[in-house]
Amino acid sequence: MSEQASPALAAAMQEVGAAVEAALDRLLPPVAEGGTAKLDAAMRYASLNGGKRLRALLAVASSDLFGVPRARSLRVAAAIEMLHAYSLVHDDLPCMDDDDLRRGKPTVHKAFDEATAVLAGDGLQTQAFLTLADAATHPDAVVQAGLVAGLAQASGARGMVGGQAIDLAAEDRTAAGQPLSYDEIADLQALKTGALIRFSAEAGAILGGAGEPDRAVLREYAAELGLAFQIADDLLDHEGSAAEVGKAVGKDAAAGKATFVGLLGLEPARAKARALTNSAKSRLASHFGPRSMVLQELAEFVITRRS
Amino acid sequence: MSEQASPALAAAMQEVGAAVEAALDRLLPPVAEGGTAKLDAAMRYASLNGGKRLRALLAVASSDLFGVPRARSLRVAAAIEMLHAYSLVHDDLPCMDDDDLRRGKPTVHKAFDEATAVLAGDGLQTQAFLTLADAATHPDAVVQAGLVAGLAQASGARGMVGGQAIDLAAEDRTAAGQPLSYDEIADLQALKTGALIRFSAEAGAILGGAGEPDRAVLREYAAELGLAFQIADDLLDHEGSAAEVGKAVGKDAAAGKATFVGLLGLEPARAKARALTNSAKSRLASHFGPRSMVLQELAEFVITRRS
Repeated sequence: MSEQASPALAAAMQEVGAAVEAALDRLLPPVAEGGTAKLDAAMRYASLNGGKRLRALLAVASSDLFGVPRARSLRVAAAIEMLHAYSLVHDDLPCMDDDDLRRGKPTVHKAFDEATAVLAGDGLQTQAFLTLADAATHPDAVVQAGLVAGLAQASGARGMVGGQAIDLAAEDRTAAGQPLSYDEIADLQALKTGALIRFSAEAGAILGGAGEPDRAVLREYAAELGLAFQIADDLLDHEGSAAEVGKAVGKDAAAGKATFVGLLGLEPARAKARALTNSAKSRLASHFGPRSMVLQELAEFVITRRS
Repeated sequence: MSEQASPALAAAMQEVGAAVEAALDRLLPPVAEGGTAKLDAAMRYASLNGGKRLRALLAVASSDLFGVPRARSLRVAAAIEMLHAYSLVHDDLPCMDDDDLRRGKPTVHKAFDEATAVLAGDGLQTQAFLTLADAATHPDAVVQAGLVAGLAQASGARGMVGGQAIDLAAEDRTAAGQPLSYDEIADLQALKTGALIRFSAEAGAILGGAGEPDRAVLREYAAELGLAFQIADDLLDHEGSAAEVGKAVGKDAAAGKATFVGLLGLEPARAKARALTNSAKSRLASHFGPRSMVLQELAEFVITRRS
């Protein structure tokens, strides 16, 4: 995972990854005896030991820009990771993407059962908002409420959940021979994955009491990083399949999904991801200077990672 | 529905029901053109034209005790009804209770599809928190954050979702010949339905800036009302079946579920519901006096209703 990360970024990813893991462990309900035991375990299974923690690192590194204590930024990072984990649990359900594996482990409805997966996702969403509306996250309730509103906007019907609905509708369109255009896929991803990524980066500015100019730069940086991340995902899918299965088109394209690579072509997609990353980096460098190095390197990492 | 309500309560139910309907219509995302159309429509289908609005009336009537403007209390009532509607949509899913009908209409996964039902429930939960963390709900962010935290506590893994998990586990126990005891069912219901009912009544005190003594009285009143409501549900199930199907035991008992009626017997269950209602009413009367009449009558209504 960290092969393509610079030493400084690799250290930050390692450190924040471990710290957000500890924060999640503290903030999730313990596995209690009695009837909630399976739910408690499923919520932990879904959110602990998970992924690259890209969103957590965005929240913590953006908070670091404003000198926010880690005790605060890690709570926000954990809340965002709970929200992200809930979306994956529900996305993997049989009625949604019907995935049996996630990061090499059985998905929650496979490891537990479908009803528990629905409830665990529901409970993780609730726990995210409970975590934000707490004086330990920030003593000023204006900041707490701003974080709640920001996360709700990013993840609701006009954010992540809306993007998932558009993705479902796109499958019908593709089946009807009317696949999405580049702009339509970019809009879909801006909601489905982009909105939470933008909130993650902006969260540091909210916690730090920064003004709109700082917030706007972080949002725009994260919008570019988020789109570059998705294009890189398509490239990995394409190249992974080409190397492993010996065919030119990967599983998303094979599944009839419109992809950035399919729409733009291989080299233009690579060029687009590179251009987005360069823009994200220079935007941060010119506004925040060298103290934004971790975030700049993170933008580089999302298009050079190999998984 | 209002046959058993006094004229004053019937008028309040009518008025608040219409007002919360209008608030929901304003606060839910409109049905937009494009890929979110089905999600938007499903969120509205799930929450508009719904039920007795017991929770909304608790929130509004408790707010009225403290002179809270209706423009505020109706937003909180709408947020609670969104949360309640999400729980019903997910409860009805094939992997949960697998219900095809809700209040005589097809359930959301029947009227739309299962994936849309999962997303609509998810989006309704998010929209509830978005509604609370807003200056239009209360200008003081301390109140906004207090409402968010209160709703999250009531509905999460140690509230409603936890109660649903205990209910799932209870089915396994019943199948294994170890049905729940009266105390265990009362504890289950105190989480599964009671926590949100308690929060609904306490919400008025939070909005009104009332102190802990007022809050505690409203919580205790609502705890008694909530348990009486569930016992009355069992009685309706029992008596409805007895009258209609000509057998002594209703559908819950037939489905192997432990019920209050099954555990206590018919007359003791009736006496228990009556005692809870009397206690809830006298608790309010002695603390708040006659201005709590609507809430007192509501406690009477939940055990005398016929549906």
